[in-house]
Amino acid sequence: MEFTQAFRDQLAALFAWRRDVRRFRSDPVAPALIGRLLDQTGLAPSVGLSEPWRFVMIESPAARTAALTNFEAANADALGGYSDDRAHLYASLKLSGMRDAPVQIAIFCDETTDQGFGLGAQTMPEMRRYSVVCAVMQLWLAARAEGLGAGWVSILDPDRLAADLAVPEGWRLIAYLCLGWPEEEHSDAELERAGWEDRLGIDNRVLTR
Amino acid sequence: MEFTQAFRDQLAALFAWRRDVRRFRSDPVAPALIGRLLDQTGLAPSVGLSEPWRFVMIESPAARTAALTNFEAANADALGGYSDDRAHLYASLKLSGMRDAPVQIAIFCDETTDQGFGLGAQTMPEMRRYSVVCAVMQLWLAARAEGLGAGWVSILDPDRLAADLAVPEGWRLIAYLCLGWPEEEHSDAELERAGWEDRLGIDNRVLTR
Repeated sequence: MEFTQAFRDQLAALFAWRRDVRRFRSDPVAPALIGRLLDQTGLAPSVGLSEPWRFVMIESPAARTAALTNFEAANADALGGYSDDRAHLYASLKLSGMRDAPVQIAIFCDETTDQGFGLGAQTMPEMRRYSVVCAVMQLWLAARAEGLGAGWVSILDPDRLAADLAVPEGWRLIAYLCLGWPEEEHSDAELERAGWEDRLGIDNRVLTR
Repeated sequence: MEFTQAFRDQLAALFAWRRDVRRFRSDPVAPALIGRLLDQTGLAPSVGLSEPWRFVMIESPAARTAALTNFEAANADALGGYSDDRAHLYASLKLSGMRDAPVQIAIFCDETTDQGFGLGAQTMPEMRRYSVVCAVMQLWLAARAEGLGAGWVSILDPDRLAADLAVPEGWRLIAYLCLGWPEEEHSDAELERAGWEDRLGIDNRVLTR
């Protein structure tokens, strides 16, 4: 299987345009499209072929409210950790699209799975969680290629969310993903535009041994 | 920025052909190509725009030997945890390409970085590590689109490797990546072909709440 230079150029554009989206239109996303994206997500790499990812579609008003309340509490706590101008700037940021995003998925790692027989996870058991992150990343890229936006919310109490959603024991929250059609399109990060942080690039992050 | 159906079809093929590669030809990879891949990797998402990824190119004989010795010890320990047929099967698996891969990169997370001012990492500090996994995934896909193979080795003592490579305090090993031109091409996983584990797919991993 060979890929063309034209494909690589578009892949590079996908990487540039895959941004964290927090401003969603409220119109629905076809369930068949979400199904296709999840099918592609299932092709992600996983340690020992353990496929430890578990997807919880957050659809009921009760589940949505639990997640939103969780975010709002964690976000208020986080704001309390900043002061002066930085606090003012933090308070002005839009850090989740949970009020509007039509599709919301809590993505867990089943840390108790026997699948894969523990291969590759003896010295680094965190590899199961990392496998789930690989799946999130694949979902994110596939969504953007369809024109959908995705936003990863991490300002959440993970234990509280697992309890509120009554997921099985041993499932750890990895990501809370908002998906939907974006209100606006950008190739730069919202945190850069808002003046929170600059992208420094990779050049000074490479050492040789 | 819109993507075409033809691009999405090729992206789906990339996901299918992005396999963990452990059998590499020994011919070199152009440094300029590795540089381009790292540039694309730097476009990965990171919590709070913290860009916590740190890349250590493993080039010297001393560094290569330290990594290979580390893998061999961890792999022998792992083998000791299996018995009977499963041990026999484990021993027959090729679990790293570290003897042949021309390019090897140890990828760390700087858990002490101030960049991003802690945004998004208060309740889930592991988000910094997950950001590095996103970068690994982006590197992996970009490499495969160029025809290069990548293999993620996790059968390693991460603290020992960090010490042997003398990386700064507070850097945590996330991935040890082998890169090179693959000896053979497959769309299925080596662990499936070897009969270690089956891919179960995503259908029974989706709940609704």
